[in-house]
Amino acid sequence: MSPSEAFTVDPWGITEHGLDLPGQARAESVFALSNGHIGLRGNLDEGEPHGLPGTYLNGVFELRPLPYAESGYGFPESGQSVINVTNGKLIRLLVDDEPFDLRYGELRSHRRMLDFRDGILRREAEWTSPAGRTVRITSSRLVSLTQRAVCAIDYTVEAVDGPVRIVLQSELVANEQLPGGAGDGDPRAAAVLEAPLAAELRHADGLKGVLVHRTRFSGLRVAAGIDHVIDGPERTDTAAESSDDQARITATTVLHPGQKLRLVKYLAYGWSATRSLPAVRDQVEAALTAARYTGWDGLVAEQKEFLGRFWGDNDIEIEGDVELQQAVRFALFHVLQAGARSEERAIPAKGLTGPGYDGHSFWDTETFVLPVLTYCLPDAVKQALRWRHTTLPMARERAAQLGLAGAVFPWRTIRGEECSGYWPAGTAAFHIGADIAAAAVRYVRATGDTEFERTHGLELLVETARMWRSLGHHDAKGNFRIEGVTGPDEYSAVADNNVFTNLMAQSNLWNAADTALKYQHESGLLGVDTEEAAAWRDAADKMFVPYDEQLGVHPQADGFTDHQMWDFEATPPEKYPLLLHYPYFDLYRKQVVKQADLVLAMQVRGDVFTAEQKARNFAYYERLTVRDSSLSACTQAVIAAEVGQLDLAYDYTAEAALMDLHDLGGNTRDGLHMASLAGACIALVAGFGGLRDHTEQLSFRPRLPAGLQRLCFSMSVREHLLRVDITHATTTYTLRRGSVLPVLHDDEPLRIEAGKSVSRPTAKVADAGERPTQPPGRAPARRHGQAGVKIGSVDHLAAE
Amino acid sequence: MSPSEAFTVDPWGITEHGLDLPGQARAESVFALSNGHIGLRGNLDEGEPHGLPGTYLNGVFELRPLPYAESGYGFPESGQSVINVTNGKLIRLLVDDEPFDLRYGELRSHRRMLDFRDGILRREAEWTSPAGRTVRITSSRLVSLTQRAVCAIDYTVEAVDGPVRIVLQSELVANEQLPGGAGDGDPRAAAVLEAPLAAELRHADGLKGVLVHRTRFSGLRVAAGIDHVIDGPERTDTAAESSDDQARITATTVLHPGQKLRLVKYLAYGWSATRSLPAVRDQVEAALTAARYTGWDGLVAEQKEFLGRFWGDNDIEIEGDVELQQAVRFALFHVLQAGARSEERAIPAKGLTGPGYDGHSFWDTETFVLPVLTYCLPDAVKQALRWRHTTLPMARERAAQLGLAGAVFPWRTIRGEECSGYWPAGTAAFHIGADIAAAAVRYVRATGDTEFERTHGLELLVETARMWRSLGHHDAKGNFRIEGVTGPDEYSAVADNNVFTNLMAQSNLWNAADTALKYQHESGLLGVDTEEAAAWRDAADKMFVPYDEQLGVHPQADGFTDHQMWDFEATPPEKYPLLLHYPYFDLYRKQVVKQADLVLAMQVRGDVFTAEQKARNFAYYERLTVRDSSLSACTQAVIAAEVGQLDLAYDYTAEAALMDLHDLGGNTRDGLHMASLAGACIALVAGFGGLRDHTEQLSFRPRLPAGLQRLCFSMSVREHLLRVDITHATTTYTLRRGSVLPVLHDDEPLRIEAGKSVSRPTAKVADAGERPTQPPGRAPARRHGQAGVKIGSVDHLAAE
Repeated sequence: MSPSEAFTVDPWGITEHGLDLPGQARAESVFALSNGHIGLRGNLDEGEPHGLPGTYLNGVFELRPLPYAESGYGFPESGQSVINVTNGKLIRLLVDDEPFDLRYGELRSHRRMLDFRDGILRREAEWTSPAGRTVRITSSRLVSLTQRAVCAIDYTVEAVDGPVRIVLQSELVANEQLPGGAGDGDPRAAAVLEAPLAAELRHADGLKGVLVHRTRFSGLRVAAGIDHVIDGPERTDTAAESSDDQARITATTVLHPGQKLRLVKYLAYGWSATRSLPAVRDQVEAALTAARYTGWDGLVAEQKEFLGRFWGDNDIEIEGDVELQQAVRFALFHVLQAGARSEERAIPAKGLTGPGYDGHSFWDTETFVLPVLTYCLPDAVKQALRWRHTTLPMARERAAQLGLAGAVFPWRTIRGEECSGYWPAGTAAFHIGADIAAAAVRYVRATGDTEFERTHGLELLVETARMWRSLGHHDAKGNFRIEGVTGPDEYSAVADNNVFTNLMAQSNLWNAADTALKYQHESGLLGVDTEEAAAWRDAADKMFVPYDEQLGVHPQADGFTDHQMWDFEATPPEKYPLLLHYPYFDLYRKQVVKQADLVLAMQVRGDVFTAEQKARNFAYYERLTVRDSSLSACTQAVIAAEVGQLDLAYDYTAEAALMDLHDLGGNTRDGLHMASLAGACIALVAGFGGLRDHTEQLSFRPRLPAGLQRLCFSMSVREHLLRVDITHATTTYTLRRGSVLPVLHDDEPLRIEAGKSVSRPTAKVADAGERPTQPPGRAPARRHGQAGVKIGSVDHLAAE
Repeated sequence: MSPSEAFTVDPWGITEHGLDLPGQARAESVFALSNGHIGLRGNLDEGEPHGLPGTYLNGVFELRPLPYAESGYGFPESGQSVINVTNGKLIRLLVDDEPFDLRYGELRSHRRMLDFRDGILRREAEWTSPAGRTVRITSSRLVSLTQRAVCAIDYTVEAVDGPVRIVLQSELVANEQLPGGAGDGDPRAAAVLEAPLAAELRHADGLKGVLVHRTRFSGLRVAAGIDHVIDGPERTDTAAESSDDQARITATTVLHPGQKLRLVKYLAYGWSATRSLPAVRDQVEAALTAARYTGWDGLVAEQKEFLGRFWGDNDIEIEGDVELQQAVRFALFHVLQAGARSEERAIPAKGLTGPGYDGHSFWDTETFVLPVLTYCLPDAVKQALRWRHTTLPMARERAAQLGLAGAVFPWRTIRGEECSGYWPAGTAAFHIGADIAAAAVRYVRATGDTEFERTHGLELLVETARMWRSLGHHDAKGNFRIEGVTGPDEYSAVADNNVFTNLMAQSNLWNAADTALKYQHESGLLGVDTEEAAAWRDAADKMFVPYDEQLGVHPQADGFTDHQMWDFEATPPEKYPLLLHYPYFDLYRKQVVKQADLVLAMQVRGDVFTAEQKARNFAYYERLTVRDSSLSACTQAVIAAEVGQLDLAYDYTAEAALMDLHDLGGNTRDGLHMASLAGACIALVAGFGGLRDHTEQLSFRPRLPAGLQRLCFSMSVREHLLRVDITHATTTYTLRRGSVLPVLHDDEPLRIEAGKSVSRPTAKVADAGERPTQPPGRAPARRHGQAGVKIGSVDHLAAE
């Protein structure tokens, strides 16, 4: 079954009919539930068949050695890998001693539905066992957005055609066997990751079970607990048992046709690097008690209320493309899930939906996910940035190790230490520091949270500014140069004066100086004096940005436009993604771009490019950009829209939005692409909405592609909730909360007041010129047109 | 004991008095014997104590996995490590059942001498056992230069002060335990390398023993055999026994004072990747038979004759510095040992003197070792280049993998496959191809061996020229640019238009075109047509060489002179070598040079630099060059001499020459620095002799530093043997063989005829200007002056 056939198109949910075994791992990612704290892949209740079983706790990882054929100073020796923790989703069913397994017997019907409005994954199955007995199974699963330690499952089995003996085994299982082995072929890593949990406590009694384990090397204590409410015929027996890696509550009964056995399972997790075993165990038991007290219906009601509020304030409505409507709600739903309750933990590149990229967080979070959350769930942004702030000691240590001042944040990490094993695409990507700083500045601007700014933002800005100041240098002409670094495009590395990096560093330095001035007392405590702030301003003012006068475009870094062109004509489709088929040395030295780099600079620092430069640069880089990363289409959409290439922008928007639903990267099985999902929202809001937030005042340039009739979105800005409703004719701004908010519409200052919508004509694009071309075979799929290209998605090295 | 105190200064040999246990591994390298085919470290006969036991066979290695924290396309997955093969040096002695071990009892005297004139390592010891019995041991060891499979040991024990029961165990031992473990901390590699030999055959009978083993993964069959002549008192019993990893011949007797037991041990090796077990065993037994037939005295006589001829033709004589005299003969001796009988095998960076750099060969061979051997042992050069030629299929495969035409030779290898695990300092160092081509051209010029040129040289030139043509490209102005490559300096990487690389590629391309024209039939068979040759010429003619007009120096690569200066003032001595204390990213982006790069370009392509450019460039790069590699001082010596900085040249010459005798890099324990040893000869001949061989005609510019009274060397050039005798007053050219040879002396054409010496005044340096300065603390030791710097020597990444 092709990815696009697997799921129905429905504006408010995803439904899968039947079961697509080869696509099962993909569906498990799509149907993953999470609250940012706990993540459950959409594995079947009965555990098997599975694509990839997965239960993840934010921040629970194991350490593993990072090996090098040839080592070097500062190469991280230890990596962090997310682990599949104790599985509490398991409810095994025996029907007359025949295990309920969809691969055997006859599956008369099977349906799974994820509803974005209540966040519940529902399932209905009717199955005839090999022995000929038919049962009907319904289950609902949630990961609570209101009680962050809690998940719950409502599981019912009903006899259809005759009396059946039913056994339900509701389990906790630690150290599940994973398919294919762990550790990327490194036997040492595999040994560490295969059974990462060492048993500390096991307990089962009545309808309750608890397991406490500890990771061997990272020393994290993980407790999982289950409790149940069972409702069945009179003679329903239960039993409890446990072993080191298992706790099991069994319910047995005989069901006559029409009779049901219902089991509500509450599942709670607690984990800590420091707290004692009894403390973590008690925490889990307390969470279970609270969950039972709330009850299944109560948890469902809370979930509905939470999501109702979220959608009420933050829905993005589209008219004219129901598939895109579904995809963008899917995107928003998963971005919400990833960030909602991450609370001083990282938001990984895959959220908690799969083990891809080892569960690491990258710049994806600050660059793609947080810009979306800033205007819909600002508290999640605060939490994510507070997490970065907690890692400052590690980032300072890393800076010292690298001979730099301030803080060097890791390119990839779970806890905060650098885990990148290939420095040209890891350590050298210093822009992560500026990405974090920009996210903090955007958050403060959007929320007015000066308390955060004073207590956390300032220090993030100061320490990253210090890093930039020590990384760069003034040349003989006084220009400030940043050399030997890697920008967003991973098909170039270790270049001088990457435009994106230099411009982001420039903002970082200016913002640090401004914020230090604003909080003189606090910045003084951080050791900032006027000389230091002046040095930041000086570096920022003199920041060097290369420009190729001859071609009239910005090289993405010094000398880039002098490089040999990649021979796209001689590159057949099966050689994409290029990094799996060509050596880095060849990619690095030629003009070929994996993902938006200079084009991203034109989005995030659009203020320093003229409209003509944007159009010329965009056209130039379109010809070079192969999109071997899912972190590209959304940015290309935004700039395509800005330069008036609305159809192209539309194509890119759809690509970003359908990345996972259509499995465009071919690796949705390992988890969802949070940056691309968030990017789809960015493409709509910053692309067709034309939102820019370079200054205190939001600015819009709404333009709609022919394929869409209407685009409507809302944004929380401080105490305001602004609604922007765009049709081809008119754009209407309404304040749904707050009193008055000034915005810019096509550079015209508007004052949006409570109760008074302001409408302006939506501008038409006069003549944007020819549609820019992409490398042969790398054009995005035409929306409502011919089939598109399979894009390869390897967002983060290493090649997998 | 400091390294310089360990050995006596003697113009024709090295003597060690006593035993310096901490310096033992260093002495084992210094006293290593080899013929290029077999290498025996200078381990004590009795095996222990040892620094590092070592017996190496050229080309015998084991495969081991190369791990990557993050892998990438084209990263080699398998490495090759030289292994310590079956040890046949072992002769254990029991004195009244007390093992002869220098660490116990009383060592009354101990002396080891290596004589460069006969290549024999002699040893004399007088030892009183803990039980009070004194014996005198003398032994002599040789690795035959005439019978390449053969080594021999003449071992005598004499009773001094009373009757003693003597047991001599002469052994072959496979899979010796090595101190410290193998495999650089990678347990997988360690597992492979710890006991690399799997037993296939064992045999001991009479006075003979044979062991045949096979390496597990590389599949090489290794046979070792011993045979003996024993001469002792009437009742001397012998026994033979064997096990899988051991063959032992035991001789027992009782010696009365003055009585001796003498054992002559013949040791032979044979190895093959293809030949059968009986074939390899028979080969070893045949070699033993030949050795016995020749006898110890015969082997010694052959050795003396071989070396007598070598020194007669190739000695470098120095007056005024006996330490340097010793060092340069030591150097020539070891270079001879490394190359004499390597016969279609590689010459590793450490020769066969130790396991350093995994036993790999690098560009060291073609760039430093072969230029010396070309004029004294040209047949060794032919053999080494024939080895490169045999690896062409692998080099072509590598080129195809990298998307290039022609052949890409490995940066480091034993058999021919790339074994570099860090591509920016491995694969990217494409200059290896041009280094090989240049060595082939030099060999043909010096010998007139057109048969080699036609059958081997042509193909090496064609395949490397093809590589360059596909690696570089013509830019819009028509210039030919080579981008994204690494030059000799490993503190820069992946830069554009490295001057050394571009100039070497230029010669390579021109020479390929010329040679193809010379051999039209053969080049046609290789597919070369006039269009291809024209493209080579075109690329070479338009080769881009960057020049910094403002500073008036050549940047070693594009943009180098714009980079930030390394902060040498803030770099304390203990932070050298820098690569062990600073990250690559920081080294790469700043002006700091590990080893001669642009300066080496000025030596090998001196024809394209003006005298003024040489002086300016040299002074500029002196300030940046830290010599964290032993592949630097010799080149700096050559250019220092050329620009008239004779005292500085003298200091660098001494550093190159004393690299191992004074253990300046601190790692002589792992094997000798063949390139530095050869470099010492280059420093003298090309530095003070001023030899350049850019064209058919040798040219000289003799200049002597104040510290030397005379320098005299000879060179084989085709059928000629030219002697150059330099004093401060006069330089005299004499033809010792051949009829007539034109040379240039200070640009004056001279015609040297048989029997007629030609003398010319040795020029004085008028005014070379101020002595260039080095980074603080990195000046070379002043010869006859203050103590110098300890240079760090990490010639080849990775950091160890």
